[in-house]
Amino acid sequence: MSVTAAPGFAAAGVSAGIRPSGKPDVALVRALVPAVGSAMWTTNRVQAAPVTVSQRHLEATEPQAVVVNAGVANAATGPGGEEDAARTAAHAAARLGHEPEEVLVLSTGVIGPRLPMPKLLAGVDEAAVALSPDGGPAAASAILTTDAGAKTAVAGGERFTVGGMAKGAGMIHPRLATMLAVVTTDYALAPGEPDAFLRPAVERTFNRISVDGDCSTNDAVVLLARRAGDARDHGADGAFAAALEEVCADLARQIVADGEGATVVLEIVVRRASSDDEARAIALRVATSPLVKTAAFGHDPNWGRVLAAAGSAPWNGGFAKLDPDRLRVSFDGTAVFDGGTPTGLTPTLEGAEARIELDLGLGDGSCAYLASDLSYDYVRLNAEYTT
Amino acid sequence: MSVTAAPGFAAAGVSAGIRPSGKPDVALVRALVPAVGSAMWTTNRVQAAPVTVSQRHLEATEPQAVVVNAGVANAATGPGGEEDAARTAAHAAARLGHEPEEVLVLSTGVIGPRLPMPKLLAGVDEAAVALSPDGGPAAASAILTTDAGAKTAVAGGERFTVGGMAKGAGMIHPRLATMLAVVTTDYALAPGEPDAFLRPAVERTFNRISVDGDCSTNDAVVLLARRAGDARDHGADGAFAAALEEVCADLARQIVADGEGATVVLEIVVRRASSDDEARAIALRVATSPLVKTAAFGHDPNWGRVLAAAGSAPWNGGFAKLDPDRLRVSFDGTAVFDGGTPTGLTPTLEGAEARIELDLGLGDGSCAYLASDLSYDYVRLNAEYTT
Repeated sequence: MSVTAAPGFAAAGVSAGIRPSGKPDVALVRALVPAVGSAMWTTNRVQAAPVTVSQRHLEATEPQAVVVNAGVANAATGPGGEEDAARTAAHAAARLGHEPEEVLVLSTGVIGPRLPMPKLLAGVDEAAVALSPDGGPAAASAILTTDAGAKTAVAGGERFTVGGMAKGAGMIHPRLATMLAVVTTDYALAPGEPDAFLRPAVERTFNRISVDGDCSTNDAVVLLARRAGDARDHGADGAFAAALEEVCADLARQIVADGEGATVVLEIVVRRASSDDEARAIALRVATSPLVKTAAFGHDPNWGRVLAAAGSAPWNGGFAKLDPDRLRVSFDGTAVFDGGTPTGLTPTLEGAEARIELDLGLGDGSCAYLASDLSYDYVRLNAEYTT
Repeated sequence: MSVTAAPGFAAAGVSAGIRPSGKPDVALVRALVPAVGSAMWTTNRVQAAPVTVSQRHLEATEPQAVVVNAGVANAATGPGGEEDAARTAAHAAARLGHEPEEVLVLSTGVIGPRLPMPKLLAGVDEAAVALSPDGGPAAASAILTTDAGAKTAVAGGERFTVGGMAKGAGMIHPRLATMLAVVTTDYALAPGEPDAFLRPAVERTFNRISVDGDCSTNDAVVLLARRAGDARDHGADGAFAAALEEVCADLARQIVADGEGATVVLEIVVRRASSDDEARAIALRVATSPLVKTAAFGHDPNWGRVLAAAGSAPWNGGFAKLDPDRLRVSFDGTAVFDGGTPTGLTPTLEGAEARIELDLGLGDGSCAYLASDLSYDYVRLNAEYTT
């Protein structure tokens, strides 16, 4: 049920003609009861207009609705682009009976062009009429660009539900700005609280995947939660945090599996590093190494490339600490390098998933990262779609 | 004339049977007059045995000769690998009448296996007999692995000559440890002085190229210079520094042009950044972006990908400073993005070289970087050679 799995939310997805294919390209999500919310944005120095405008809106008040368009990213569009984003929010707010600042806007698509405003605003009108508690799947389809399919996830139980949708498959099309997710829940939170739940969940999920190591100008994850009354019940906070992370992890894994040209999902697990930060630096370096990723495409348990990558993980102005004499590297549970020398074992990597573990034997730091492999199709998708 | 272009040096290259192809695989370079030297090594936390042993030798005394073998990298080989490297140096030293510490050893090839010592030592014997002032080209051929051809460069004039050889094309073969260079000169330097010349030259050349962003376990650049008498003439220091940088830049460019599957050499120039360090961070990020590199393969002036990469260049715990509203991006001299908005111009990128310029409009920092593109052949070379 996607982003409307939790009671109290409605959504819609419509075709406004922004995508040349005619596929759905405008999604609207709104809370049917008072909501509170939070969001995490791309940290890229180049930020799209909707990111700038939505950040401003979030600082002013609690969000009650989100407009997403696919096809045009509204990035690198100057002051005019910001006016377009603000106008979209104001237009949706008027239709829904909200203040403009209560609406967030997200865009994904080609970097450079301006939004086709008449089409987009007509799409918002149509979506506002179509809003429904059953509209989650339609909304999830309307935020896609070159994704192979919709990405949705649900978690929770008797006490609450967390539902979400996401899009992203790397930046397949030239100049495509990518990776959006919207998650809703009927777990009641007070204003200001959603951030404390969203931040760690995103850090451990969306911030630990890599298709190509490139960070887009439009990345955004939004959480909308039912607004709590005066005496909020904190009894299920732990369970809610776990369910939120489960939804985020599920969506993040779907993005990697649908990565550009992906044939293998690589799980890189770093254990017993000097610190969590160093574990993350090493996992990231291995996850983004073209040599490790092409080896994965070739189903090659190439521990030499893993060593070379892990040993040169940028951290704190140098490289993250690693001592080959204490290091054990395993592929799918089989140790291939241990304590400074090869074990001589050569596991077969035949599945659509492969697990690379590095046990550094140094401390308590750990990190897990997901990455896709680097295939011919990755190159084809990114080289042949010339502008 | 490669590494023997300068008077006072002899070299040889022989086939010792280490490479399965039977191609030349042992090179020897020696000074015929007293020499001083310096070297720069891979900063990878995983360092090959010859790197460890040669660093120890350099700390003890001035180098007079260099043994290089191709085929086996002697990396990740444990204490036994260090013994092999030390024994190789001692064996060559005995043949040449030097102390063991006066010989440096370099290895390139597959990570993991031990050196075939009987073959290698027999090769050193043969090379010692074959040493000749005309042996530079033979030596340059004997250090290659999967390189398309030998890489040599010469600079200088009436007062002195600088000659060098290099190898490296990325890590084409599984577990290949790569990028070696040996440079010699008859410009007389005192002990301890070579480092001050080599370091800035390498920083501006070999340290500013990227085939795949992966740093090998064996990278090394060695400089041997004629040893100066008591009253060294400093008159041509500036000219020598320039010639040394010219040779290093020439060799570095040859490595990029021979990069795995390379069809285009990308020159990334960052100007007017907040600092040189930030310029370098941005240039490196653009040079290693798979999206920028696949676009180059597709001859696509894809400034959106350049923007997304440049805006997320890791620096000092965050991203290097960049303001899209002050940024100008040009391809081959044509501005495609200027002051926050696209110019609408679309240059054709048809050549085997392409120049991407980013003028940040912030300060005085600048950096130039060379990179190869990302092609089908890159994936084929790195995925199909499975272990």
